[in-house]
Amino acid sequence: MIETDILIIGAGPTGLFTVFEAGLLKLKCHLIDALPQPGGQCSELYPKKPIYDIPGFPEVLAGDLVDNLMEQIKPFQPGFTLGERAEDIEKLEDGTFIVTTNKGTKHHANAVAIAGGLGSFEPRKPQIEGIENYEDHGVAYMIKDPEAFRDKKVVIAGGGDSALDWSIFLANVAQKVTLVHRREEFRGALDSVEKVQELVTQNKINLITPAEVTDVKGSDKVESVTITIHDEAKRFQEIECDAFVPLFGLSPKLGPIANWGLEIEKNAIKVDNTLDYQTNIPGIYAIGDVNTYPGKLKLILCGFHEATLMCQSVYQRMNPNKKYVLKYTTVGGIDGFDGSRKEAEKAVIKKIGS
Amino acid sequence: MIETDILIIGAGPTGLFTVFEAGLLKLKCHLIDALPQPGGQCSELYPKKPIYDIPGFPEVLAGDLVDNLMEQIKPFQPGFTLGERAEDIEKLEDGTFIVTTNKGTKHHANAVAIAGGLGSFEPRKPQIEGIENYEDHGVAYMIKDPEAFRDKKVVIAGGGDSALDWSIFLANVAQKVTLVHRREEFRGALDSVEKVQELVTQNKINLITPAEVTDVKGSDKVESVTITIHDEAKRFQEIECDAFVPLFGLSPKLGPIANWGLEIEKNAIKVDNTLDYQTNIPGIYAIGDVNTYPGKLKLILCGFHEATLMCQSVYQRMNPNKKYVLKYTTVGGIDGFDGSRKEAEKAVIKKIGS
Repeated sequence: MIETDILIIGAGPTGLFTVFEAGLLKLKCHLIDALPQPGGQCSELYPKKPIYDIPGFPEVLAGDLVDNLMEQIKPFQPGFTLGERAEDIEKLEDGTFIVTTNKGTKHHANAVAIAGGLGSFEPRKPQIEGIENYEDHGVAYMIKDPEAFRDKKVVIAGGGDSALDWSIFLANVAQKVTLVHRREEFRGALDSVEKVQELVTQNKINLITPAEVTDVKGSDKVESVTITIHDEAKRFQEIECDAFVPLFGLSPKLGPIANWGLEIEKNAIKVDNTLDYQTNIPGIYAIGDVNTYPGKLKLILCGFHEATLMCQSVYQRMNPNKKYVLKYTTVGGIDGFDGSRKEAEKAVIKKIGS
Repeated sequence: MIETDILIIGAGPTGLFTVFEAGLLKLKCHLIDALPQPGGQCSELYPKKPIYDIPGFPEVLAGDLVDNLMEQIKPFQPGFTLGERAEDIEKLEDGTFIVTTNKGTKHHANAVAIAGGLGSFEPRKPQIEGIENYEDHGVAYMIKDPEAFRDKKVVIAGGGDSALDWSIFLANVAQKVTLVHRREEFRGALDSVEKVQELVTQNKINLITPAEVTDVKGSDKVESVTITIHDEAKRFQEIECDAFVPLFGLSPKLGPIANWGLEIEKNAIKVDNTLDYQTNIPGIYAIGDVNTYPGKLKLILCGFHEATLMCQSVYQRMNPNKKYVLKYTTVGGIDGFDGSRKEAEKAVIKKIGS
C-alpha cells in the first residue's frame, strides 16, 4: 500500500505543480497516470509544440514546461504510479481514501486531487476482429519500454508523429521494423518524415503504403499480421512478426472516475469554486481541465491557481486547528523533502569603513 | 484623452499579464502606475531576489519575470502612464469610465482593472519641518530620471539598496554626491556595499555616518541641508546642494482608490470570485494582491488566473451578443497588434517516396 497525504490523479502540468504547492505546506504527494511518463497531453500529444500563454514565458515548448515543472517539484520527492489507470476509490471511516489502479496497485491518502485533464487518454484501436485477445501478447497501443522490442520483428501502423518517431527509434533496436500506413502521405514533423525516408532508403524500415493491417494471427501470441494493400489489385501480404503496434492516436475519456459518485456536468467534474475546488465528496478535489464551474477556462495557468488554493484546503482538512500563515518563497525560501534548501541571499549588513 | 478598452491600474506582474490575455481577445490595454517603471514590487523592491513559486520556473529573479512579461505582451503594444497615480474615476452614462491621475492625465476606457497590488507605494518621508514646500523643487523621494541630476550637487539619505545603488549611479553623473545614513552599517547587496566603499575611498562619494538630515533650506528651491552628526559632540554640518533625495523605502497605501465607492475589507477590494473578480461597481474589476474573496491567496500565480477570467468578462461586457470560443495558443498562435504573428510550425504532410 502506497501511503501519501495527497493522491493526485493525473500527472499533467496541474498535477505536477500541485506537488510544489503541497510541498510548501509539508504535504507529501503521489501521482497516478495512465500514460507511461509524466506531463499529460504536453508530453504525449505535443511535446515539441510551443505554448504562448504560460505567464512569464513568451514561448515555451510543452515538453520543456514539463521538464521545468519536474525540476521545480524535485525537492519534494513525489511518488509516481505510471502506466496505470485509477480504477476504484473507497472512502474509509476516518475520511481517508484508498484508490486502486487497473493493475491492482493500492494507494492510501488523506485527500484525492483529480487532475485528470480531459480524462485518461485511451488509444484508438484498429477495427480488427479478435485483436483484444492479443493485447499484452504482442499487441500494444503505446510503447512504454522500447527495450521490450529489442531484436524483435515489429509492425507499426499509423501516419502521425508517434508512428514516425517510434519507427525511427526502433529501427536501431528491433530486428526488423515494418511501417504500415493507409495513405502515402504522413502527417508529422518535417525532420521525422525525412528521417523515415532515409531509413527506408537504407532498408532499415520496411515501408508499406497505402495499406492497412487487417488481421492478426498466432496461437497464444502474435505470430504474423495480414496487410491489405490498397492498390487496384487489392493484394494481401502476410508479415511474420512478434509485435504489432497500432499508433492511431489517443482519445480522452473520463473513464472509471465517472463512476465514483462525483457530480458530472458535460464530461467534467463540478466543483465549488468559491473556495477550494472541492467536489461534492469532501476530501476529493478536481483541478485543471477536468473540472467545471461558472466561468471555467480550460487553461494550464488556471490549473496552477486551482491547485494552489486546493492545497490550502487540504492543509486545513489535515490540520483543522492550525492557522496557516502564507509565507512568500522570496522571503522564506523552500525546504525540500530531500534536505535541499533554496533561499535568496540575505541582504548584507556591513559597515563602510572610514 | 487616452482611449483604451481596459484601463489597468498597476503595472505589476498581474497588470502586465492582463495585457496578454486581453490581447488574445483583441482588447487593447493601457496601464497607469505610480512608479516610474513597470513591474510593481518586483521591479521596485526586489528585482534581484529569486521567486520559487512561479509555475514552470524552478527559480526566477523578480526582475527577470518582469522582463519576460514585458516581452510576452509586446505584440499587443500596451500604453503606459508611469510615475502618475490614479486619482479620480467617473462613470459615464454609457457605462464607460474616465480615470484621471494626480498629474491630470485623463484615460477613457470600457472597463477598469485595478491590479494595484498592496496599493501605490508611497515613499516614507523624513520628519523634517517644511520639507513638503521643497517637493519637486529639489526634494525627491524617488529617482525617475537620473539625468535630472547631471552636474548637480546631490545629498542622498538612506541605508538600503536604493540609497546605495543610486549613490553609485549618480557618482558618475552628478557633480557631487553626499550619502548620509543614521547608522554606520548598511543593509544592501554585498557588491553594492563594496562598490560604495570603493567610491568613498576615491572621493567620488562623500559619506557621512552616523548622521541625519535635519533641515532643508533655500528660498524657492533647495540650496542646502543641515546634517546632524550623531557623535558625542552632536555636531552640525551645513551642506550646499541642489537636490535632497531621502530614500527610506516605500510603504504601500491603497490611496485614492479607497474613495471610489468600492467595497473595501481589510485594506483590500472585495470581489465576486464565482465568476470574474468584478467589484461592486459593474465594469470595475480588482485582480491580484489588491482584491479579497474567501480563500484568497496573495500570490502572483493567482493574479495571473484572475486576470485571465476577468478578460473574458470584459469581452462579454463589450460584446454582449457574441459567444467567445476559447482558442488555444498552441493551436491558433498569437496575432499581435503590431502585425506580428507567432505560431507553431504546422505539421508537415509529406509523401515518402519509394
